[in-house]
Amino acid sequence: MIPAEIKAKLQSIVGAENYDDSKAGRLVYSFDATPQFQSLPDAVIAPRNTAEVSKVVKICNEQQIPLVPRGSGTNLCAGTCPTEGGIVLLFKHLNAILEIDEENLTATVQPGVVTLDLIHAVEEKGLFYPPDPSSMKISTIGGNINENSGGLRGLKYGVTRDYVMGLEVVLANGDIIQTGGKLAKDVAGYDLTRLFVGSEGTLGIVTKAILKLIPVPEDKMTMLALYQDLEAAAKSVSKIIANKIIPTTLEFLDQPTLKVVEDFAQIGLPTDVKAVLLIEQDGPTDVVQRDMIKMAAICEEEKAVSVKVAESEAEADGLRTARRSALSALARLKPTTILEDATVPRSEIAKMVLATNEIAEKYGLTICTFGHAGDGNLHPTCLTDVRNHEEVERVEKAFEEIFVKAIELGGTITGEHGVGVMKAPYLELKAGKEGIAAMKAIKHSLDPNNIMNPGKMFAKDSRKRVVVSR
Amino acid sequence: MIPAEIKAKLQSIVGAENYDDSKAGRLVYSFDATPQFQSLPDAVIAPRNTAEVSKVVKICNEQQIPLVPRGSGTNLCAGTCPTEGGIVLLFKHLNAILEIDEENLTATVQPGVVTLDLIHAVEEKGLFYPPDPSSMKISTIGGNINENSGGLRGLKYGVTRDYVMGLEVVLANGDIIQTGGKLAKDVAGYDLTRLFVGSEGTLGIVTKAILKLIPVPEDKMTMLALYQDLEAAAKSVSKIIANKIIPTTLEFLDQPTLKVVEDFAQIGLPTDVKAVLLIEQDGPTDVVQRDMIKMAAICEEEKAVSVKVAESEAEADGLRTARRSALSALARLKPTTILEDATVPRSEIAKMVLATNEIAEKYGLTICTFGHAGDGNLHPTCLTDVRNHEEVERVEKAFEEIFVKAIELGGTITGEHGVGVMKAPYLELKAGKEGIAAMKAIKHSLDPNNIMNPGKMFAKDSRKRVVVSR
Repeated sequence: MIPAEIKAKLQSIVGAENYDDSKAGRLVYSFDATPQFQSLPDAVIAPRNTAEVSKVVKICNEQQIPLVPRGSGTNLCAGTCPTEGGIVLLFKHLNAILEIDEENLTATVQPGVVTLDLIHAVEEKGLFYPPDPSSMKISTIGGNINENSGGLRGLKYGVTRDYVMGLEVVLANGDIIQTGGKLAKDVAGYDLTRLFVGSEGTLGIVTKAILKLIPVPEDKMTMLALYQDLEAAAKSVSKIIANKIIPTTLEFLDQPTLKVVEDFAQIGLPTDVKAVLLIEQDGPTDVVQRDMIKMAAICEEEKAVSVKVAESEAEADGLRTARRSALSALARLKPTTILEDATVPRSEIAKMVLATNEIAEKYGLTICTFGHAGDGNLHPTCLTDVRNHEEVERVEKAFEEIFVKAIELGGTITGEHGVGVMKAPYLELKAGKEGIAAMKAIKHSLDPNNIMNPGKMFAKDSRKRVVVSR
Repeated sequence: MIPAEIKAKLQSIVGAENYDDSKAGRLVYSFDATPQFQSLPDAVIAPRNTAEVSKVVKICNEQQIPLVPRGSGTNLCAGTCPTEGGIVLLFKHLNAILEIDEENLTATVQPGVVTLDLIHAVEEKGLFYPPDPSSMKISTIGGNINENSGGLRGLKYGVTRDYVMGLEVVLANGDIIQTGGKLAKDVAGYDLTRLFVGSEGTLGIVTKAILKLIPVPEDKMTMLALYQDLEAAAKSVSKIIANKIIPTTLEFLDQPTLKVVEDFAQIGLPTDVKAVLLIEQDGPTDVVQRDMIKMAAICEEEKAVSVKVAESEAEADGLRTARRSALSALARLKPTTILEDATVPRSEIAKMVLATNEIAEKYGLTICTFGHAGDGNLHPTCLTDVRNHEEVERVEKAFEEIFVKAIELGGTITGEHGVGVMKAPYLELKAGKEGIAAMKAIKHSLDPNNIMNPGKMFAKDSRKRVVVSR
């Protein structure tokens, strides 16, 4: 509960209409896209500008009230669930594309801008903002920055971090700082920009961002390669890269995922094969055509049973859309969907896919696997039912084994979904005790009262696996 | 002075032959490539492995002995001058390329590897490590990481930071941590990798790095555009980018620099023009040829008096080498060379060049300007003599005005040379009081005893400009 006196102060800052502590309002923001996590905030506040954010933060810091910045809440790590109550901060008033600078190839945006709206706005000027998380139709740039979102084009173009050139951030003490700028080179002090990217709102509140744009690729082609052998598909991925071709997209879907996606999207995907690679290349037309021919040859050498280039942009778009719908399609099958994103060096994908299947078999579970094979970023997805406690225990054990295997192969516990509450118990596997101690020291130095999205990133005592249900 | 008992301990760790506190040995490491800064260390230590680094660091932390990690000392910010004494750490035993991984496109290296040796080693495998600081023939990867070095290929390919995927770092408490990995995507915790890159040895000691490689470009072409008008050259730069061409290199030299470079390199550079652009593009042959034609047309539209493509790789290499020799060539002219790297958004280059010339005239100084125009990263270089105190005072005022102007244009005080001791008094111009407070909080959280390269990055009381002399 926010004391009446504090509530009055907060209302005087943002306006009574931007302060909501009704039961209904609080309920709406008690969860995000990560079901099974729910916790009521004490209030939901929508500041109208950076100065208001700063004033709100100062009061929260004095009163030690938790602050949870939230975009569209599409994250899959419970990163925006207000697990310790406090205030959920919305950015619905901070949702403008402030500038698209064609000379410096930058966009300056407020955090509430929807990712796809930005992508469309810059495309109109012949420019390209590559990060494309699957949620991009509703996710916001602020959320993408906080989670360092990836996407299907990560292989060639990198992730959100690679496109953030500067930030305006409100720190826990209310200070407003500007980092970076429209600068190709800048070594004035520590790289705070990239420290804030992916920090999940635990170090400060992003109120503005300068994003890097690149020229829009001239051409694009899409190809589907079908396999009767999972390992052959994974080997094709490694071989393409080892042949020094970096395609835009190199997506993998196994047979169970394929069946579900086709059932959902109805675009004529083959469902009688064991695995599919969805491969895209963009760039100058000649280069794209040449790369497609080379990649097709590699896939055939690696025993693809069919390699087919999409004949139209409509067909290509259908394939991409189908791939993007994988999670939604899978989520229809069973009450609970547990989706992971353990990530390995791309040379280890075949081993990781095989290990995942062995682990699934060992524990008698249904695990479908799809994901960004070119990034080594797979999404093994377990279909289960949280009401079946015995099965859920097996699921927990299986995923712990998957994480351990990923680390053993030189990988990480999360490639693009973030740590949040969900992965916090496993962070030590990747960062080590000493790494976590360093991260906690940084957190404490910038947020000594632990008001910035508390309970995220770092685990509490319990290491219990928390389950995602839809 | 290191007490005898501590010396014995340190010698027992690294071996007596790797501990040098002779006057001669200490003198050698009392300065780096930033003259006018000199300060004797108490000892020079060359550990043989990471475990030894950790043991040395632990003792230094207990005894509060400053530690200055040093590569080849080619930095231009006095970043490796042991201004507070203590121990200079050398990496001559940690100088191996541990692995070049052709499947994952990574190189794993120790910090003492010379940059150009790495570039050659990966080129032999058809791979490319783009960061190319002008000092690359002698600079080390460890130094490049600590300073986040840039170079001539930064425009298209980015800087050192963009190629560091993972690090092994020894923290001030002796803990050894591993960050990142051979991973295209990794969001497990804060981005410590990029926090350490460019932190100038003030947060920890880098003992290993995983670097990203890319396929070597198929072809490369080089072009020289001559101008009788400085502003026209600067406008050509903006116009090339605004036309959505991102060349590999877009270098600028003004007439005074040109004359000096030609005198030094003797390769037949024209010296009767006001400015030169050295433009390179790489990639597939067709694309390179097409881009060169487009860029030549843009330069001609912007009143270039001559545009000429290099006819052979030897000719192109001569041009590149001449450009890389600019600092050495200028340094021959007068006893003292003050070289800066104030950086602006590339759209503001024309304004920055004009402002620099006006400031030089106002203070009656000779300032030659060259640099990475495509990055907005210019190196205005003042030729002076530190023994002329009255002139040096004018130089200080002029550079302070240049920094203020760069900030006013949305720029920064240093694009690629680092803060070190030299730029520390100006960091506040860019980062603000609040930004510096945040950086200092992070520094203190990881290095509470301030043993890691103390005196760098953050200014002491005096704001006096320190002068570079050669």
